[in-house]
Amino acid sequence: MKVAILGAYQTKFGELWNKSLADLILEASSEAIKDAGIRKSQIQIAFIGNKLAGSLSNQNHLSSLLAQLLKVHIPAIRIEAACASGGMAVAQACMAIASGQYEIALVVGVEKMTDLPIEEVSSGLMSAASLEEQESGLSFVGLYALMARKYLEKFEAGEEDLALPAVKNHFHASLNGKAQFPFSISLEQVFQSPIIASPLRLLECSPVSDGAAALVLADARLAQRKSEDRVFIVASSQASESLALTGRENLAEILSTKKAAETAYERAALGPQDLSLLEVHDCFSIAEIIALEDLGVCKKGEGCLAQRNGEVRLGGRRPVNLSGGLKACGHPVGATGVKQIVEIVNQLRGRGGKRQVEKPLVGLAHNVGGTGGTAVVHILQR
Amino acid sequence: MKVAILGAYQTKFGELWNKSLADLILEASSEAIKDAGIRKSQIQIAFIGNKLAGSLSNQNHLSSLLAQLLKVHIPAIRIEAACASGGMAVAQACMAIASGQYEIALVVGVEKMTDLPIEEVSSGLMSAASLEEQESGLSFVGLYALMARKYLEKFEAGEEDLALPAVKNHFHASLNGKAQFPFSISLEQVFQSPIIASPLRLLECSPVSDGAAALVLADARLAQRKSEDRVFIVASSQASESLALTGRENLAEILSTKKAAETAYERAALGPQDLSLLEVHDCFSIAEIIALEDLGVCKKGEGCLAQRNGEVRLGGRRPVNLSGGLKACGHPVGATGVKQIVEIVNQLRGRGGKRQVEKPLVGLAHNVGGTGGTAVVHILQR
Repeated sequence: MKVAILGAYQTKFGELWNKSLADLILEASSEAIKDAGIRKSQIQIAFIGNKLAGSLSNQNHLSSLLAQLLKVHIPAIRIEAACASGGMAVAQACMAIASGQYEIALVVGVEKMTDLPIEEVSSGLMSAASLEEQESGLSFVGLYALMARKYLEKFEAGEEDLALPAVKNHFHASLNGKAQFPFSISLEQVFQSPIIASPLRLLECSPVSDGAAALVLADARLAQRKSEDRVFIVASSQASESLALTGRENLAEILSTKKAAETAYERAALGPQDLSLLEVHDCFSIAEIIALEDLGVCKKGEGCLAQRNGEVRLGGRRPVNLSGGLKACGHPVGATGVKQIVEIVNQLRGRGGKRQVEKPLVGLAHNVGGTGGTAVVHILQR
Repeated sequence: MKVAILGAYQTKFGELWNKSLADLILEASSEAIKDAGIRKSQIQIAFIGNKLAGSLSNQNHLSSLLAQLLKVHIPAIRIEAACASGGMAVAQACMAIASGQYEIALVVGVEKMTDLPIEEVSSGLMSAASLEEQESGLSFVGLYALMARKYLEKFEAGEEDLALPAVKNHFHASLNGKAQFPFSISLEQVFQSPIIASPLRLLECSPVSDGAAALVLADARLAQRKSEDRVFIVASSQASESLALTGRENLAEILSTKKAAETAYERAALGPQDLSLLEVHDCFSIAEIIALEDLGVCKKGEGCLAQRNGEVRLGGRRPVNLSGGLKACGHPVGATGVKQIVEIVNQLRGRGGKRQVEKPLVGLAHNVGGTGGTAVVHILQR
């Protein structure tokens, strides 16, 4: 399977009180179609990734809303996989193209989260956890704090290690005008921020955000783009894990990430050593550390080393989360997985602006639902 | 594309207060896998169709819940397309198999609607309509009543015509132990039932239900079943239409059904004249009449004739909604589209029990989201 990316676009992420869910869908779709240089009528199928519109805006059936906004009658499908809804939508679009039934697909990821009181948003977010976890009064930061505790207990890592991904990702976001928090923060600022669920501090948590991102994908055999713009998805894979943490054998890893990565490397005939850059799911700082290990980029227990020696920072050997990640670019849930791929496409096309990596060849996007109940991995190559 | 159906199962539909969402998912999945005669570990990908668990049970991320219940780590994807969530999930599973990446897929459709006050359920259901329709105080029976008014104005049809599909479908349900309302009703009973939104009466509306249904699908080249059990999906198609009724040109038809049917007939190289039986989306009685016209089974404006002359009743030329339809078998939203296919599979396998059609060869399943913002059509053949 080889899918060409013809167009890519991300809206500004942040508290976008002057934009509705429909506005965001329309902006992202229209701009991605424009970037692809195709006509709207050439799109044959559309996928929309979203988690919370049903709970927060009483708007399900987004597939039909998308069709209405674009004034098309093509098949349109809404995918929901918690915080992996965006990546999962891309994966289904790849499958649709691989089926040979469709040549050009649109994927939109979108979320509108900042119009409601935080209590309602938190409750909505918890719908991605098990009912038992919800009834226990756990929050996602609480669940990831359990994972962080386990990690700190098992491996040589300390408070500073948990803070480093946040500092790095804010630095990257300071170079990204589309980021929700386009500014740097210091290690001291992280330490001064309040503990939300020990050991995790406020500045180690991703925010509540609005935003959308979109891609136009095509059967690689049909892609007629100028060579310098050609970017391909060379692997798309997904895996599942028990919804509840109680069903897991090891809280210091996410099995679904490991399984999805394994399949992706096999499908792409590439390995972690081939990656020029990654966008990984850093909903909390500990998640980035664990992700790099599960993806095989670092050995087990050595995820912190890569943060300390700077190899995952812009200018390092293999930058991670150049967009600013979920932490600093923002985390409009359904949009995140699509945005990760938009960032990699921009980098591979040499359009990374102030945060451009030198001649990158291969990028990996890693999107997680909940505490790892779902993981989606895409590998892109130019 | 040719997909073999290895296993099919429907739970009892009704007010199932002693069964949770998880219970229903597990029962349907396990029994479909058993019916397929395969091991759970042979399933390579799973799709779950559901509309309301996020709103009514604060449980999104059902893909991961399914993986947890089955104790598997395969890719699992939740599909939401309002009342077409089930059919849409089947369509994505067909695409996954057509992609050549997966050989055996599980599809589950599920809904749990009767645990909450009806006001909350109604509000949740309205999430499948546009925000403007919601703010106008419209309900789905109100929206379909507008369509019915338009239909009655345009064509020669009266009150009795609106009642006939309900009477027929209840008769069929009286022969189906899995139905929510396994009993007949008379024309007089329909006329005596209160008007909910003129011209539609209570007994012309589908109920609020709990239930699940599941299918095991396989690449037809790999299906190793006894010949008398072999049933294939020979076409799977989807189309979209404006979410809001205000965006439509003609309220007496559903354009998405017409487009999906057109594609399905083309893909199957079959036409309406080839159909032995149909399961169509009769959320309200008018919907069955319009569906038969949009599917090309009746000429425009003649949908009522087929009800009057009995050809769509068991024993008639081309029975419609032998399961009892949404009206009398029940309408657990996400389960409906899957159940329709389960019914057709049972009929094509000769396992229709008291409502078995004589040697049926081809069946069509038609599932609609909202007022027609989404339509999904599957054609099955033995």
